[in-house]
Amino acid sequence: MKEISILGSTGSIGQNTLEVIAAHPDKFNVRALAAGTNVSLLKEQIERFRPEFVALATEEAADKLRERLAGTETAVLSGIDGLIAVATHSDVKMVVSAIVGAAGLVPTMAAIEAGKDIALANKETLVTAGPLVMGAVERAGVQLFPVDSEHSAIFQSLVGHRHGDVRRLILTASGGPFRATSLEALKQVTAVQALAHPNWSMGKKISVDSATMMNKGLEVIEASFLFDLPGKQISVHVHPESIVHSMVEYIDGAVIAQMGLPDMKTPIAYALSYPERVELNQPEMDLCSIGMLNFEEPDHLRFPCLKLAYQALEEGGDAPAVLNAANEVAVQFFLSGQLAFLQIPEVVSRVLEMHDPSGLTTVSEVLRKDRWARERSLEVIRQLEGACA
Amino acid sequence: MKEISILGSTGSIGQNTLEVIAAHPDKFNVRALAAGTNVSLLKEQIERFRPEFVALATEEAADKLRERLAGTETAVLSGIDGLIAVATHSDVKMVVSAIVGAAGLVPTMAAIEAGKDIALANKETLVTAGPLVMGAVERAGVQLFPVDSEHSAIFQSLVGHRHGDVRRLILTASGGPFRATSLEALKQVTAVQALAHPNWSMGKKISVDSATMMNKGLEVIEASFLFDLPGKQISVHVHPESIVHSMVEYIDGAVIAQMGLPDMKTPIAYALSYPERVELNQPEMDLCSIGMLNFEEPDHLRFPCLKLAYQALEEGGDAPAVLNAANEVAVQFFLSGQLAFLQIPEVVSRVLEMHDPSGLTTVSEVLRKDRWARERSLEVIRQLEGACA
Repeated sequence: MKEISILGSTGSIGQNTLEVIAAHPDKFNVRALAAGTNVSLLKEQIERFRPEFVALATEEAADKLRERLAGTETAVLSGIDGLIAVATHSDVKMVVSAIVGAAGLVPTMAAIEAGKDIALANKETLVTAGPLVMGAVERAGVQLFPVDSEHSAIFQSLVGHRHGDVRRLILTASGGPFRATSLEALKQVTAVQALAHPNWSMGKKISVDSATMMNKGLEVIEASFLFDLPGKQISVHVHPESIVHSMVEYIDGAVIAQMGLPDMKTPIAYALSYPERVELNQPEMDLCSIGMLNFEEPDHLRFPCLKLAYQALEEGGDAPAVLNAANEVAVQFFLSGQLAFLQIPEVVSRVLEMHDPSGLTTVSEVLRKDRWARERSLEVIRQLEGACA
Repeated sequence: MKEISILGSTGSIGQNTLEVIAAHPDKFNVRALAAGTNVSLLKEQIERFRPEFVALATEEAADKLRERLAGTETAVLSGIDGLIAVATHSDVKMVVSAIVGAAGLVPTMAAIEAGKDIALANKETLVTAGPLVMGAVERAGVQLFPVDSEHSAIFQSLVGHRHGDVRRLILTASGGPFRATSLEALKQVTAVQALAHPNWSMGKKISVDSATMMNKGLEVIEASFLFDLPGKQISVHVHPESIVHSMVEYIDGAVIAQMGLPDMKTPIAYALSYPERVELNQPEMDLCSIGMLNFEEPDHLRFPCLKLAYQALEEGGDAPAVLNAANEVAVQFFLSGQLAFLQIPEVVSRVLEMHDPSGLTTVSEVLRKDRWARERSLEVIRQLEGACA
């Protein structure tokens, strides 16, 4: 029986994780859950999975939940202390880290330092603090399993093969909703258009990142830290069908790939059950009905975010954290209609140019740099508005 | 340093194996070679690789070689004793079994019983005597590495994953030169047309087997024995580009595939160097230039040989050996223009119907059944000729 905590249980990854756990009650057991402010859904999850305690983001939300849970045994915590309690539950073997955004970093580090294996769905953790996190993983002697489909695919394509025999990783990208949109037309695209992802149903931030291909850039950075390879050994192929989730090319010319229908449950379950697999009763992938898999080079002219991510990775230190923060702010302004689509890479590029490169040795440095980059991004956006007006 | 013997050193697999060995003299060393009757090429190989002894199929060929080698230290043997001496060289760790046809079975079994790991390229060994061979492998505690691209792909897609988690194997097939040829047109195709394989340059027998898809049927049988799975857990996808060499689908919906440009050196080198890989300095597979990978179901109406192989596998015992022998005879008559293309499956089907199913417990039983099936095949072919006349 694997004892599990989930950080972010009411989000998409959290819900899928609970479904995998519910299908295998003989293998997995939930001990603690943390959510943001979705009191109703967390209440349902508590009734179904009976964790010992849960945490909500605010004391206000925690109070609401306490009222509605009156009479049950589940304790309700709140804030960062609550998150850390969930992340470090003494009986837990694995923590699923699925909180969106920078808020995921501190509890994930706490879980690693408490000796927990991590199923990592939070992108910012590795993008902003990759060297710190991987250093902590090594010191604690824990395992870090990627939960998103691309890194899980690479992980699955590396299992049983020697790291020293890897020539390069090949991340696949759907190309997003604007794969075939001209540069001219990209200047005018709206948030509604950007949110219509062809293959995956995702949150708004990640949908825009997929449309700009920044999402793939962030994944390149994550892959570099996760698999300890420089950017020049990581390629990106646009693959509109999202069937080949990613690949590893070896020195003898062999390429190992992991494929499947787009479904988050496979990588989640693999992280939970590695090195075994569990039955998921999903529809079989029928390549003969799919018929055709297409691959093309990414277009760096129309999607400059990908190159910016490679640049930040090569620069190292705090550059990926700056890239990530500037992108978050820019995407937020694009979503509210205050920034044009092609201004997202412009903001990121300018903020990257403004920063003085430095190494990162503590989580608080990461958070400080994150704040710095957000402030600069707001300045840059104001300048762009001024220039347009 | 891995000490190696090669059975069939002057054939295509043998030559490719020697090239891999020549590129890595720090890792591999040739101790003994066996060939058929190609005295000139074997002489060149002796001069280049300096084995302690070699074997030729006939004493006549051996005499010719001895004359031309006068003054060197390499001993020249002949016949089945020579083959077995090469297969059981006391210092050798691995034997590459690449003799074409039923002649490969006896020395391969001798190598296994002498405790050698096997790199297996000879198809007939497993098709005709799969349970015997796998039993011997288990008793001797040796490893059997497949050398053809499909089984090596499956082997590479299984490494690091649990056998109990496999849902099915998916062998890919190019579809051969007649993939898009109508049933009506197939009645008239000639040996010359059948020998024009789109992706691989191969011998005549295997080219015809590829055109009838019997080749894939024999591979399904081999895969069943090699990977200990029944026919119903082995699928075939037609994949004209021959880039995805084969796949394994797991119970969680994940599919692991091995891809690469069509080249025999990758699977050969992997068998020699497993679990490591060696640099082969081959052109990189560029999926973006290839652009598109296609998959379709095999057409059992136009290619009945595939179904016949599944039937023989399901029947078990001596049925695969009978299938194989009948097919060899039928292909020989097709190549000499004495049998129509669609009569190949007819001959195989009729001979399979004639045989009394029985188990196989010794190699001599296999060889006896092989002879029996060849005689019956000749009778069936004579009847077909009579019917046509």
